[in-house]
Amino acid sequence: MKTIGIVTSGGDAPGMNAAIRAITRIASAKGFQVIGFERGWEGLIKNSFRRLTPRSVGGIIQSGSTILLTSRCLEFKTSEGIRKASANLATDNVDGLVVIGGDGSFRGALALSHEADTLIVGVPATIDNDVYGTDETIGFDTAVNTAVTEIDKIRDTAISHERIFVVEVMGRKRGFLALTIGLTVGAEVILVPEAPINKEEVFRTVKENAAKGKKSGIIVAAEGIGDTRKLAEEIEANTRAEVRLSILGYAQRGGSPTARSRLLASLFADEAANLLAQDIGNRLVGLQKGEITSISLEKSCKNEKPLNLRLLELAKTLAT
Amino acid sequence: MKTIGIVTSGGDAPGMNAAIRAITRIASAKGFQVIGFERGWEGLIKNSFRRLTPRSVGGIIQSGSTILLTSRCLEFKTSEGIRKASANLATDNVDGLVVIGGDGSFRGALALSHEADTLIVGVPATIDNDVYGTDETIGFDTAVNTAVTEIDKIRDTAISHERIFVVEVMGRKRGFLALTIGLTVGAEVILVPEAPINKEEVFRTVKENAAKGKKSGIIVAAEGIGDTRKLAEEIEANTRAEVRLSILGYAQRGGSPTARSRLLASLFADEAANLLAQDIGNRLVGLQKGEITSISLEKSCKNEKPLNLRLLELAKTLAT
Amino acid sequence: MKTIGIVTSGGDAPGMNAAIRAITRIASAKGFQVIGFERGWEGLIKNSFRRLTPRSVGGIIQSGSTILLTSRCLEFKTSEGIRKASANLATDNVDGLVVIGGDGSFRGALALSHEADTLIVGVPATIDNDVYGTDETIGFDTAVNTAVTEIDKIRDTAISHERIFVVEVMGRKRGFLALTIGLTVGAEVILVPEAPINKEEVFRTVKENAAKGKKSGIIVAAEGIGDTRKLAEEIEANTRAEVRLSILGYAQRGGSPTARSRLLASLFADEAANLLAQDIGNRLVGLQKGEITSISLEKSCKNEKPLNLRLLELAKTLAT
Amino acid sequence: MKTIGIVTSGGDAPGMNAAIRAITRIASAKGFQVIGFERGWEGLIKNSFRRLTPRSVGGIIQSGSTILLTSRCLEFKTSEGIRKASANLATDNVDGLVVIGGDGSFRGALALSHEADTLIVGVPATIDNDVYGTDETIGFDTAVNTAVTEIDKIRDTAISHERIFVVEVMGRKRGFLALTIGLTVGAEVILVPEAPINKEEVFRTVKENAAKGKKSGIIVAAEGIGDTRKLAEEIEANTRAEVRLSILGYAQRGGSPTARSRLLASLFADEAANLLAQDIGNRLVGLQKGEITSISLEKSCKNEKPLNLRLLELAKTLAT
Repeated sequence: MKTIGIVTSGGDAPGMNAAIRAITRIASAKGFQVIGFERGWEGLIKNSFRRLTPRSVGGIIQSGSTILLTSRCLEFKTSEGIRKASANLATDNVDGLVVIGGDGSFRGALALSHEADTLIVGVPATIDNDVYGTDETIGFDTAVNTAVTEIDKIRDTAISHERIFVVEVMGRKRGFLALTIGLTVGAEVILVPEAPINKEEVFRTVKENAAKGKKSGIIVAAEGIGDTRKLAEEIEANTRAEVRLSILGYAQRGGSPTARSRLLASLFADEAANLLAQDIGNRLVGLQKGEITSISLEKSCKNEKPLNLRLLELAKTLAT
Repeated sequence: MKTIGIVTSGGDAPGMNAAIRAITRIASAKGFQVIGFERGWEGLIKNSFRRLTPRSVGGIIQSGSTILLTSRCLEFKTSEGIRKASANLATDNVDGLVVIGGDGSFRGALALSHEADTLIVGVPATIDNDVYGTDETIGFDTAVNTAVTEIDKIRDTAISHERIFVVEVMGRKRGFLALTIGLTVGAEVILVPEAPINKEEVFRTVKENAAKGKKSGIIVAAEGIGDTRKLAEEIEANTRAEVRLSILGYAQRGGSPTARSRLLASLFADEAANLLAQDIGNRLVGLQKGEITSISLEKSCKNEKPLNLRLLELAKTLAT
Repeated sequence: MKTIGIVTSGGDAPGMNAAIRAITRIASAKGFQVIGFERGWEGLIKNSFRRLTPRSVGGIIQSGSTILLTSRCLEFKTSEGIRKASANLATDNVDGLVVIGGDGSFRGALALSHEADTLIVGVPATIDNDVYGTDETIGFDTAVNTAVTEIDKIRDTAISHERIFVVEVMGRKRGFLALTIGLTVGAEVILVPEAPINKEEVFRTVKENAAKGKKSGIIVAAEGIGDTRKLAEEIEANTRAEVRLSILGYAQRGGSPTARSRLLASLFADEAANLLAQDIGNRLVGLQKGEITSISLEKSCKNEKPLNLRLLELAKTLAT
Repeated sequence: MKTIGIVTSGGDAPGMNAAIRAITRIASAKGFQVIGFERGWEGLIKNSFRRLTPRSVGGIIQSGSTILLTSRCLEFKTSEGIRKASANLATDNVDGLVVIGGDGSFRGALALSHEADTLIVGVPATIDNDVYGTDETIGFDTAVNTAVTEIDKIRDTAISHERIFVVEVMGRKRGFLALTIGLTVGAEVILVPEAPINKEEVFRTVKENAAKGKKSGIIVAAEGIGDTRKLAEEIEANTRAEVRLSILGYAQRGGSPTARSRLLASLFADEAANLLAQDIGNRLVGLQKGEITSISLEKSCKNEKPLNLRLLELAKTLAT
């Protein structure tokens, strides 16, 4: 192992920079040279990269965004794209590649691993937390806290005006964000793609709460449950409540990472560098049962991480 | 002057509670009794109120929302509603009424003043800052900072993905929020209802910036400029940029007030209490040229506060 | 099990209110009556308590502080104090008592359990994270993030002035806070009570960093390592650096709990209520290897939670 | 006017970077070349500077610190230092110099103006707000909000433990920070260097509050009032209250600037650039009665900005 490449791919997540910093410094301490490919897979295809040194990654641990930039790269989904990337890794003598991203990025990494000689290790960084093989991804805790801070503010208006707010949070396919956010803001209702939506039950909850004197409320809904605007209108039509919709947008994806996102970034980076130093590749590092560990990239790509639906029941009790 | 009533009306704004606290304590120190009407004008119509004492308003200076609740009250727009409110003020022996709210609330207050014997003083509290007679309203600074904090986060994703973000901020009729937010996030383009929208110029700015190497950007648009989703699509269609829309929602209306919003609340409350103690009514307190002062409610209602459009020019220079 | 008592004891921690809310609502859902003793153990000794209902604990999930108040109670360290508390628990027909606090509180709880018939369950809530039997306590994540936010600001001044800052964080006996904070702010040096302080090494690190062009730096030191003011002076005397000391104070103990502190509060409360519902007492709930579980109160009190000193090594590599 | 120099001097303040950005972009738009001297006056003495362009100041509007660095420079207090700086300004053909800093910096600027041919304009940026000629300085609003956020957290612990906290805020000579912070956190007592400290009155206030049932409290004291530790001890000795001291440290000097600090930075920069473009120097720009304006540097240096002591009286009423 002489040269390690780093690439950030897919949607950005707070803590990606902390991971770049940590990998660069740990790998440098082990005597490796480090290069960073720019704009995700596009950088591998176009062979666009720069040297990373312990000094060049200074002052970024607390920043959102990724200094390596990222993109969604269609060409990488073609065998031609994979071939080009593989050829560039060979040309650049990249012995190990650390891929920082989400599940889509790891499917790309797996495809690349079948073509390239470079050892590949994945570091899960996505606000969605939907990566099999790790209990938590870099950026998830930050996105949750960003949403919680915003919803705490929305709660103020809900209380002042005695209104119900439907708050749509990110999560096109999965409800990890919605569930954790809902639990921690004390949402009266939480709606996730993994569980059937019973609108009658939602109406009933809103009406029962009003009868108990709880005239304001927060309904946290994952993006992926369908049309939240329609839902808000239906709740208003079927209860006596005044209902508003608020869609929390891209702010969930940015911002200075929380301590936990920074810590995971450092611990994952350490594990990734250690694997590569032992010439082990095709792994995804992760947090499992409180320990830093890794599983095979293939296993991560072939499995779907389950959502703990029991927590939805707890949330109902907590919102009484 | 023996009894002072307080009412919060219209949309809530951070700092309303700080104002309620300040009025209650200052008025109590002057020997007045204080009562708070609940749910805005509805509370006057239904004669729903509670005693407020220095102790009962403790611990609220830092909270968003209004402990008196608020609502938009259609009945108060009728002469019957005004008459009921006026009768209740007489029944309750309310000598002075402090109305905390925005321009709609002050039009209501003015109508009420024509019917009631109670002296009325307005305290401007609205995130929109669109009240004639004060350079700044309670809550405006908080809403600006909330939006700036969110847009700073969106900027992270804009940079990572080299995208243009159209960010819609509150302001159905006026551009005070959009202008100040745009200037302070360093927006590349600011769009307000008070100035014509030149889409060709927007496209040109985006393209020129890209040519200069500035591939990401923030366009801050007031709610009131029209369909921001269509705007985002048009920018994408007319430039080579990837464009996304983010609508900052109700979080702008809540949250712990900033120091400035709290300070204005205290200073306005002091002025309001002093006016009533001198048996002066039908005034709106405000900040003008750095001084706390007041104008007649009527003058405030009949005039429209101008937006400093020269700052739009400055913003363009600053975004080069 | 008919009546459950709750007491918060020792230093306050963000998330205590979220725990009170969760226990009250879960226990109420199980059909129990809930009472809250006031001012920690003092409330048991003086039999000062109030009814808690699902409605009376509304709106507190996001607040710092504890609505039940807390105190350090000397009388409870006497057998007379324990006897009085025990007698009051019997008088009040408290079948189960949930003690929310830190290690000192659990030693008190253990002593009480030897005297009283009431089943006792501990819920760990302390910013210090120094409770054996749980990988994390309620409040720890919040305190870490509060400190990280402050130190990120101090870093600005460190950079502007090219200075070294010694930042003292809480932790009289243990270094959990200092270690996690240090890792996540990217501290150049981390000093904890659990590891010997090698001042020569600190001087050397500061000088080597300066030679590398890294003229500013952050040294995170736990309160318990000794005189930080003297340390700052010694560093200045033994290097060419300008050194300042900043002591992060009580703000670390307050504030709105982070999502993680709120989540732990809910999960711990659920476990505590479940144990009592099964007539199981003398347990401390906790998070172990990613799972919510419990150990005996006695075991928790008799053991000391280890600090992962390997992370100090990682921190050194990360700060290169 | 062909070349404009910028220097940041004295203690750093949030918004200095926003000012550097604004001056650079506005001056560039006017056709001037811009250079930035590094490390305050030291950069003028050593002729250490770099070119600043609209692109090189991108992405800094939201950052604390100053990209030009700053220092306290003893040599600049000698005529030899002034002479060297003056000579370098001539060598570098600097026609106009913008000095961003506090009152100490402006005394240096005034001395330099007597020696150099360069036109000098001051831009007030200091968290202390103690510059004559402007109602507010860049950074003041940020420092106030940082302190308010921290004290809101300390209030949580004060309430939980029913304690009095003495909170020392920055301000060695002046009480602008303490007064505004005290008013906006709802401090029970505010102590500033400009008003005599009546300890008996402080004890009486603490005791009267306790009698009213207000057992917790916040006393905000400016650094400059003397030994706050001793004060805290005396309060404890003379009342029945439990008293703690918390010294808010350097975090007050850093952090992302608030919207208001950013706005002032842009408006002051605009005025400074306009003055220089008209060949007007030896001015200090500022905010007076809500308008951006300027006064002579000399007048600013020879006068002391008054503190509005009437607000101390208001604060007492508000804290009842």
